[in-house]
Amino acid sequence: MYPPSMELPQLLAVSRGERPADLLLRNAGLVNVFSGEVNATAIAVAGGVIAGLGAGYEAHEEIDLDGRFVAPGFIDAHVHIESSMVPPAEFARAVVPRGVTTVVTDPHEIGNVLGLRGIRFMLEQSEGAPLDVLVNAPSCVPATHLETSGAHLAAADLATLLGHPRVLGLAEVMNYPGVIAGDEEVLAKLRAFGGRPIDGHCPGLSDHRLQAYAAAGIGNDHECTSVDEALSKLRAGLTIFLREATNARNLRALLPLVSPLTERRFCLCTDDRHPADLLEEGSIDHLIRIAIAEGVDPVVAIRMATLNPAEHYGLHDRGAVAPGRRADLVVFRDLAAPRAEMVFRDGKLVARNGRLLGDEADRLHQSVPSLPPTVHIDPERLDFSIRATGTRIRVIGAVPDQLVTESLVMDAALRDRQAIADPSRDLLKMAVVERHHGTGRTGLGFVRGVGLRRGAIASTVAHDHHNLVVIGADDASMRTAALAVAKSGGGLAAAEGERVLARLPLPLAGLMSDRPIEEVRDDMRALLEAAHGLGTALHDPYMAMSFLALEVIPALKLTDLGLVDVERFEIVPLFV
Amino acid sequence: MYPPSMELPQLLAVSRGERPADLLLRNAGLVNVFSGEVNATAIAVAGGVIAGLGAGYEAHEEIDLDGRFVAPGFIDAHVHIESSMVPPAEFARAVVPRGVTTVVTDPHEIGNVLGLRGIRFMLEQSEGAPLDVLVNAPSCVPATHLETSGAHLAAADLATLLGHPRVLGLAEVMNYPGVIAGDEEVLAKLRAFGGRPIDGHCPGLSDHRLQAYAAAGIGNDHECTSVDEALSKLRAGLTIFLREATNARNLRALLPLVSPLTERRFCLCTDDRHPADLLEEGSIDHLIRIAIAEGVDPVVAIRMATLNPAEHYGLHDRGAVAPGRRADLVVFRDLAAPRAEMVFRDGKLVARNGRLLGDEADRLHQSVPSLPPTVHIDPERLDFSIRATGTRIRVIGAVPDQLVTESLVMDAALRDRQAIADPSRDLLKMAVVERHHGTGRTGLGFVRGVGLRRGAIASTVAHDHHNLVVIGADDASMRTAALAVAKSGGGLAAAEGERVLARLPLPLAGLMSDRPIEEVRDDMRALLEAAHGLGTALHDPYMAMSFLALEVIPALKLTDLGLVDVERFEIVPLFV
Repeated sequence: MYPPSMELPQLLAVSRGERPADLLLRNAGLVNVFSGEVNATAIAVAGGVIAGLGAGYEAHEEIDLDGRFVAPGFIDAHVHIESSMVPPAEFARAVVPRGVTTVVTDPHEIGNVLGLRGIRFMLEQSEGAPLDVLVNAPSCVPATHLETSGAHLAAADLATLLGHPRVLGLAEVMNYPGVIAGDEEVLAKLRAFGGRPIDGHCPGLSDHRLQAYAAAGIGNDHECTSVDEALSKLRAGLTIFLREATNARNLRALLPLVSPLTERRFCLCTDDRHPADLLEEGSIDHLIRIAIAEGVDPVVAIRMATLNPAEHYGLHDRGAVAPGRRADLVVFRDLAAPRAEMVFRDGKLVARNGRLLGDEADRLHQSVPSLPPTVHIDPERLDFSIRATGTRIRVIGAVPDQLVTESLVMDAALRDRQAIADPSRDLLKMAVVERHHGTGRTGLGFVRGVGLRRGAIASTVAHDHHNLVVIGADDASMRTAALAVAKSGGGLAAAEGERVLARLPLPLAGLMSDRPIEEVRDDMRALLEAAHGLGTALHDPYMAMSFLALEVIPALKLTDLGLVDVERFEIVPLFV
Repeated sequence: MYPPSMELPQLLAVSRGERPADLLLRNAGLVNVFSGEVNATAIAVAGGVIAGLGAGYEAHEEIDLDGRFVAPGFIDAHVHIESSMVPPAEFARAVVPRGVTTVVTDPHEIGNVLGLRGIRFMLEQSEGAPLDVLVNAPSCVPATHLETSGAHLAAADLATLLGHPRVLGLAEVMNYPGVIAGDEEVLAKLRAFGGRPIDGHCPGLSDHRLQAYAAAGIGNDHECTSVDEALSKLRAGLTIFLREATNARNLRALLPLVSPLTERRFCLCTDDRHPADLLEEGSIDHLIRIAIAEGVDPVVAIRMATLNPAEHYGLHDRGAVAPGRRADLVVFRDLAAPRAEMVFRDGKLVARNGRLLGDEADRLHQSVPSLPPTVHIDPERLDFSIRATGTRIRVIGAVPDQLVTESLVMDAALRDRQAIADPSRDLLKMAVVERHHGTGRTGLGFVRGVGLRRGAIASTVAHDHHNLVVIGADDASMRTAALAVAKSGGGLAAAEGERVLARLPLPLAGLMSDRPIEEVRDDMRALLEAAHGLGTALHDPYMAMSFLALEVIPALKLTDLGLVDVERFEIVPLFV
């Protein structure tokens, strides 16, 4: 993919031991993902690649690792960088010191806001980063016809990305019903990426429908929640991505399926990790530690984060520490719980003791990225009032820590011929305001289970359309929260009455901050405290809110077009 | 590689169970190379690919397998078809009934005789065969400058093959000293095949030189003879091909290295198998049985012949029985010793009970392939006499069952100022006659260890140049044997005095017969009997003779240019 910076004859001279290497790591415990061993050896690096393993090499620079272990740089097989709430270079600052040197990312979120422009932004912003950001083209923009997103990407649009050297394949084809049914628009996308990796997403799929999904050429799935589900998919030929995200933690549940006979068919991925989790738990390194703690052989755990994803995606230049491969290396002390002390990328030390090294970190912040405004909301047209046309209403029943909801019917709270929130019955008003095209179109409804006693919360992070979502105990608080978000160019806010209690501006597509990830984490903490102060007991009510607007997961959801009965897959009226 | 013959929407309808499959294999014990299990299931096939696994499918044709096992079609990771002494379609008749549905072949032998024309012949002759013959371009034509072969293939010549859909990559780069030294002609070939599979061949290579060979992008090696050697190469990132050829049997010696942690890095290959071995022992199926008998888990043994080579060569359309993959299937009764009862290729039954089915077999023999003559020898110029210019001579010391020879010095047998053979001391005359260009150039020498008491044997199968090689107890017998071979357009012969005792014509490039492989085997038997009747005790003196002319293996060899001191890599005089 990237040729080494040294010509082959010069590299061979180093390999033969006739010319000094650039770098020699002495006294290393090499995690050899090919032989399945840990070997005491030395590693010679030249021109950014491994020139040779073993004794007898000399180099311009030598580092005595004093028995520390060396593994190939970790690969995150599937991640939405936008979920870190920072753009790629800043994301790199968080994950590279963890040992992650390659990610396969699906810019699905920004794609739904800004289309190709957003995807190109992610590619540009990761150019020259100390992390190889490989992009799969988002296959589901928009996700469905029951929402309004900022863009529409047909097969021909996606095909314009194929020429980019860091575009690998097609990202998770969440429209699995479309694949299975042979929907022509979906198949056109599969054809456009024929011969390339095509990622899957098929929660709960089984039997004939799973066979059809696999027959269409889908290569993997990261949505398994049980061993039985994963085993069916494994048998059907899908590679299983073991996910440990912020909102969906499936790794431990699936590890019992990882055995010597199956391990090659598993990769580790983070999917969506929020700043706090990235900074406190980590990235792929966290998953490796979990796997080892649960009893997986450390070499196998590391393979699932190196050789396996490299082979799955045909990245034959990495995933192992062997002659000719990129010198992406992680150095650590404890094989039972790897934590990166040093990280090398293309043979260059880029992070040490959890921090990106000076040059790299500074360079990242020389230019703050910017994008055109994406939150088009006219304060004059913001109106959350609901004229009562009945007395019984459909209510979204939020279920703690789950993406599915219940579809409830309750008595409306009525005042002056208006349906209003009634916090005493945990009946809160919810609004989804179309923010991409300035139509002012607003879907209105009610939700139970969020638990605000007063005030409101708002956010432009709302999978997959990322419209402005607001939940509140009264219209005034909802307006304050919504306007606070809109004024920031997107982001999150909590408000009570006229007062903004906390906010996190996300001016980059309404999804990402232009500030350091640590500040984003701190703002997020303040937002959570504010929401808890308003009475909610949910761990993260903003995330919960985000999924209440996601109309591909049952049972009742709200988009800018109105209430969606997901089983019938159509808009239904608020009043029964 | 080959798209299924059915459009995807129709295939999906079969997968969904809404349209009958073409074929349903009921009551199968599926060897699932992904999950590592054997599952009781049914296999639905449509349009030549697997449509689905599991219950609930219907089909136009159903076969009850009554619990028989089904594995993916076997893949031979590296084979020289010419060593079977028959062209590809006839080779297919021998190996397809064994369960082999894909081979990766290196047409190195015919390439050395006929260059690109020979390679294209192998591609043409395998078009439409019930075996997918994938070709790696021969990298070493000629093998060295110390022989005269029929062709010279530079990087640019090899690159003309790249457009062919069945050309995969570059075949075994035997010139490993050239790779390691960074020889420009060799690197040009590596560059021409950059991003494609590049096969290795590096017997005994270790340490820095092995690191350099691997750094150059070589992907595999099939020349390991010990666990230690294979482990070094495994650590350096080479995939290990376990070989069980007619003349080199390394499988058992290397199996101890195959463990759950390493097995994915091993593939099975036959390299060179003669007709008798193919017909009596088998092909890759024989290797699978050996591996299982030696204690390898049957699923792992089968993986080394299916999923592993498929992944190694990026053949993502095969190597497993899973939805969307080609329906290349082997049906057998005994998991401990798989012997194909039925073989399906692209979903079609092509062999049953060890025989290719009627249509296929007939079609193969509708047209007998032909090639222009390649044995250009003028009987008038054939002269094996050696004028004595001394009394002590260099003698090639043949070692039973080994390719290496000793470099001996003996007293010459002199008569009429000529150096002659002296069977009483096992001192036989040997000649290598240039046969490609009609130069009449003849290398002459002596050999000990072949053991003919009288008569002579001759052959045009002589790696890698395939000139006419003759060994005999007297010049008259040598002349008879040589002319018998020349008149056949190439092949093998045994003679005594004026009488031809046995012969095997190989009119296709002097390497392959145009008759059925069974007749070739029978002729070969008669030839061996004749040779044994002439006094040799060697198991196969023709094969031994072939390697006495191979100047890349120590210590003393003979080519048309004369005696080669392999260690000094130069021509040396016969008389000391």
